[in-house]
Amino acid sequence: MKPTIVRNIKRAGADVVKALGDMGVATVHEAQGRTGLMRPFMRPIYPTAKVSGSAVTVLCHPGDNLMIHAAMEQAKAGDILVVTTVSESTDGMFGDLLAVSARSRGVVGLVIDAGVRDVADLTAMDFPVWSRAIHSQGTVKNTPGSVNVPVVCAGAPVNPGDVIVGDVDGVVVVPRERAMEVAEAALPFLDNIGRERYIRETGKNPWLKKPPGK
Amino acid sequence: MKPTIVRNIKRAGADVVKALGDMGVATVHEAQGRTGLMRPFMRPIYPTAKVSGSAVTVLCHPGDNLMIHAAMEQAKAGDILVVTTVSESTDGMFGDLLAVSARSRGVVGLVIDAGVRDVADLTAMDFPVWSRAIHSQGTVKNTPGSVNVPVVCAGAPVNPGDVIVGDVDGVVVVPRERAMEVAEAALPFLDNIGRERYIRETGKNPWLKKPPGK
Amino acid sequence: MKPTIVRNIKRAGADVVKALGDMGVATVHEAQGRTGLMRPFMRPIYPTAKVSGSAVTVLCHPGDNLMIHAAMEQAKAGDILVVTTVSESTDGMFGDLLAVSARSRGVVGLVIDAGVRDVADLTAMDFPVWSRAIHSQGTVKNTPGSVNVPVVCAGAPVNPGDVIVGDVDGVVVVPRERAMEVAEAALPFLDNIGRERYIRETGKNPWLKKPPGK
Amino acid sequence: MKPTIVRNIKRAGADVVKALGDMGVATVHEAQGRTGLMRPFMRPIYPTAKVSGSAVTVLCHPGDNLMIHAAMEQAKAGDILVVTTVSESTDGMFGDLLAVSARSRGVVGLVIDAGVRDVADLTAMDFPVWSRAIHSQGTVKNTPGSVNVPVVCAGAPVNPGDVIVGDVDGVVVVPRERAMEVAEAALPFLDNIGRERYIRETGKNPWLKKPPGK
Amino acid sequence: MKPTIVRNIKRAGADVVKALGDMGVATVHEAQGRTGLMRPFMRPIYPTAKVSGSAVTVLCHPGDNLMIHAAMEQAKAGDILVVTTVSESTDGMFGDLLAVSARSRGVVGLVIDAGVRDVADLTAMDFPVWSRAIHSQGTVKNTPGSVNVPVVCAGAPVNPGDVIVGDVDGVVVVPRERAMEVAEAALPFLDNIGRERYIRETGKNPWLKKPPGK
Amino acid sequence: MKPTIVRNIKRAGADVVKALGDMGVATVHEAQGRTGLMRPFMRPIYPTAKVSGSAVTVLCHPGDNLMIHAAMEQAKAGDILVVTTVSESTDGMFGDLLAVSARSRGVVGLVIDAGVRDVADLTAMDFPVWSRAIHSQGTVKNTPGSVNVPVVCAGAPVNPGDVIVGDVDGVVVVPRERAMEVAEAALPFLDNIGRERYIRETGKNPWLKKPPGK
Repeated sequence: MKPTIVRNIKRAGADVVKALGDMGVATVHEAQGRTGLMRPFMRPIYPTAKVSGSAVTVLCHPGDNLMIHAAMEQAKAGDILVVTTVSESTDGMFGDLLAVSARSRGVVGLVIDAGVRDVADLTAMDFPVWSRAIHSQGTVKNTPGSVNVPVVCAGAPVNPGDVIVGDVDGVVVVPRERAMEVAEAALPFLDNIGRERYIRETGKNPWLKKPPGK
Repeated sequence: MKPTIVRNIKRAGADVVKALGDMGVATVHEAQGRTGLMRPFMRPIYPTAKVSGSAVTVLCHPGDNLMIHAAMEQAKAGDILVVTTVSESTDGMFGDLLAVSARSRGVVGLVIDAGVRDVADLTAMDFPVWSRAIHSQGTVKNTPGSVNVPVVCAGAPVNPGDVIVGDVDGVVVVPRERAMEVAEAALPFLDNIGRERYIRETGKNPWLKKPPGK
Repeated sequence: MKPTIVRNIKRAGADVVKALGDMGVATVHEAQGRTGLMRPFMRPIYPTAKVSGSAVTVLCHPGDNLMIHAAMEQAKAGDILVVTTVSESTDGMFGDLLAVSARSRGVVGLVIDAGVRDVADLTAMDFPVWSRAIHSQGTVKNTPGSVNVPVVCAGAPVNPGDVIVGDVDGVVVVPRERAMEVAEAALPFLDNIGRERYIRETGKNPWLKKPPGK
Repeated sequence: MKPTIVRNIKRAGADVVKALGDMGVATVHEAQGRTGLMRPFMRPIYPTAKVSGSAVTVLCHPGDNLMIHAAMEQAKAGDILVVTTVSESTDGMFGDLLAVSARSRGVVGLVIDAGVRDVADLTAMDFPVWSRAIHSQGTVKNTPGSVNVPVVCAGAPVNPGDVIVGDVDGVVVVPRERAMEVAEAALPFLDNIGRERYIRETGKNPWLKKPPGK
Repeated sequence: MKPTIVRNIKRAGADVVKALGDMGVATVHEAQGRTGLMRPFMRPIYPTAKVSGSAVTVLCHPGDNLMIHAAMEQAKAGDILVVTTVSESTDGMFGDLLAVSARSRGVVGLVIDAGVRDVADLTAMDFPVWSRAIHSQGTVKNTPGSVNVPVVCAGAPVNPGDVIVGDVDGVVVVPRERAMEVAEAALPFLDNIGRERYIRETGKNPWLKKPPGK
Repeated sequence: MKPTIVRNIKRAGADVVKALGDMGVATVHEAQGRTGLMRPFMRPIYPTAKVSGSAVTVLCHPGDNLMIHAAMEQAKAGDILVVTTVSESTDGMFGDLLAVSARSRGVVGLVIDAGVRDVADLTAMDFPVWSRAIHSQGTVKNTPGSVNVPVVCAGAPVNPGDVIVGDVDGVVVVPRERAMEVAEAALPFLDNIGRERYIRETGKNPWLKKPPGK
């Protein structure tokens, strides 16, 4: 693919992103008709990792993290980097320095169909990462790739600005245009604990007026 | 296989089931001549998971958990669901709702050669699960299978009523008829810590009269 | 995903489909900027398998080939069935009976991110198949899925009507709208043998007037 | 497991073994209710390999082919060696010398959930083998195991004397007691080509009197 | 390989071994030009495992831990056992008894390209292990192998006496002769936190006089 | 590793290289004490591939074949390229153009722990290749690596100038200095067919005077 950097992308509203995160991966996946789930080899680096945000997509050459650096320029508060490579790789493309840089820009997490390193530091920072592998293998910065183009990450299509939800159950992708619709469709899937958490965390109680069936 | 549900199965005595659980997977596997061990891809969803119980076997179509629901009807207190599929699958066939239902019937754990989801909730409930994968992928309830027929789960043959022991070292299957013999054979394999734990937890001291050889 | 069958799809012209097939997977993949390639686990069932055609996409439940039967109704001469499942499976979803049915409608091949069976018969028929596995495991016909919706097959996004090219090097997907542009871009990648084959098989000689660089 | 060699086993009749082999793996698997199939990683070493016979089971220590030598003593004309190891292995436990020895006893094939070597010689001999791997890695002859005990091979339970059918579609196991019943159940699954082959090769025409439904 | 036990090996100095351990796997791997890293399937049995030491190499037959026992005789305080097998295996070759024995000799950890068991006990002992698998499958003690010969472990060449560094990011091997040079080369890779930890733990401040560039 | 190109390497004599090739992988592996074998995932691209030659080692960045081009400059008649990457990759780093170039320099084969493409052309050329994968995925030429440095390829250590033997059973590496000794040690392992082939192809009959013990 011709290397491309797309600078302006649309994102879903912060409210709906937060609501989807509160609901969790399994519920959101159900609510959108069981689509958008990444493969089960994508695991969090620590079991309490939990996040939602807007996708900044990054397409890299294997063993080369040049475009993660480039993507930092395009990231805004609330974004999640979604990194994939043009062919399969487990190299450790992201570590503590990039995490510090990401956090300073408000990036809230990383989903990478490749490897990650400095996991002790990332865990101490509570910077959530879902990856295919933990591997110290370093990378070069030689070969151009793309930022904010459509990608397939761990089997799921991701467009820039899509909502990403990650927790111990995995990672699910919600298309940006459908985010509000999916959040509403998810409400009936919440059990009592989920409803209380939703009300507490969003300050809204959609069950007050319109109690969902079952 | 012609779909079959077997309603009445024999189980081993609660005492011997408990004793085998106290001994742990590695000891029990040794004591029965190194047979009955499941493949190492079967991992607990949290590292302190530890259980023993009687197998209720469930043979499902991949991506279809109809028979787990059917198996609930056959389960009694102290049972462990042992779920396998007619071909390999990582779908999330079991989650928080089924765990609540299982617990209400006294089911003490799940061993599934497929996927599981709602892992944060299952962990909070301390409901122990050993699985091939953690995956949110939902399932349908369309295709009949069998309950309480002989199955092969993660490489190990399991008959209904066999004793299942699981801990951080994996899962081992003890044939029901051999449960007492294996428990006795395991005593000499216990080291001092194991003996003290065994005496404390079972209230019996088989070493008082008949000290086992090294 | 809500089960959906799309009945009318656009296809690329037969000439360009044939030209892309004559060029082969490696050349076409280069010509379109190294995109659209399926993962290397997709292998032909016999080494001389070689085909190009228009994608009729099929999204199935694992272990369930109901939608392959449904897709037959939508297939036309020159089509290739591109079958994937909502989660990973190696079940043998396609065999000799479906191959006979497919051939009778002019379907020229199968690309399936799952299993295939009756391989001796399919080879004798010279019906080309690329699959993840060869497996006799039979399937049911219970659970609805979709035909002619966008899918991800073996890591590559496929839209209905896209051009599929398969040979011993694997499978590549060319977006329908870009088919002509890619075929033209591929001409300079052909070596002398490739050019002679192209001229012989298409009856055209694009090098006569406009010799490509390098 | 306590090392055991069982010397006398029951076998199915030669006629029914031959009939099942003529029908092929996919048909036999269907006819017995889709049970008994080995995992798809079991592949023939050459694509025209095709066999049926009675199982002599061999349970080996990984990297140790002592019991294959021991099993030779128990094998008779028409037998197939079914070899598995107590834990996963890809070592080349069987090569040209053992194949010559096996053939001299009338052994008609090998099914091994491990590795095989001297594949060029075995192919030249037309000695059919299904294995998990081709690997030159040699083995020792140190550790006892068992012959003609129940085993699980590539996911399928095998008892000594069971009928094994192998072809390019994989390997299926038919329990000895059910062999005749399965062969009869398979007749309706044969298409016209299969019926003609069956009549030609068995000299019987079960369709003359009792034409099977579709 | 002809079974061989080498009794006297050279080791790096305790200071440099400690310094490399304080720096961690990712930093050391960078400092030695990105060589010596083991494959990412080598994972610690608990996330806080962290160690450095001198390699005592052990080459075993699969499923046979005879040479681990033999290696104990050769191990000294500060050593790490580096165990590999002549072909791939996941058997549980090491458990609580061997860990107690190892600790009594001052062995500080285990790196094993195979399986380990009694993980709860090893974790309670804080005995750090990196392995390919957790598996209860027991082993025999029949077949000779070698101690302190060059091996390849999880893709990395290891010579006896090489420095092994392990943490949550994996395992890296530093050739003994290069240990001091690598430790010095690693200093500039430390960030402020790493420098403070290095000064605190080694009592040395190499940045006082000779501040590293970049 | 600091990128390095070593220009002059020692090679074993042509006679011994040929003799080892005539003996085949399984015999040579036995003769040198069962060392030097590559992992079983290394498969020939066509079943009759058979070769022996001197290793020119190539260490590449994943997805980057720059150093294969560089290695061509160092290759001589009778050499085999042994290509590995600093981390795992299946990219198609070698195709028809490189094969033509290699053949023109007298290179007799390729062993690559990565992918290969244009397999139909390579097969038609009878250019033997052993690889981890067949994949069309193209590579870049950006990142320096090394030629003729020690590498680990598919689990086996390879030094430049070592003798490589490949056939349908896999690939084995014979250290250059031991080549003659291994060839002599292999003679007793040949059976009658192997001896006749050896005499016919080398014109020597070492069994005339000194008949080897079984």
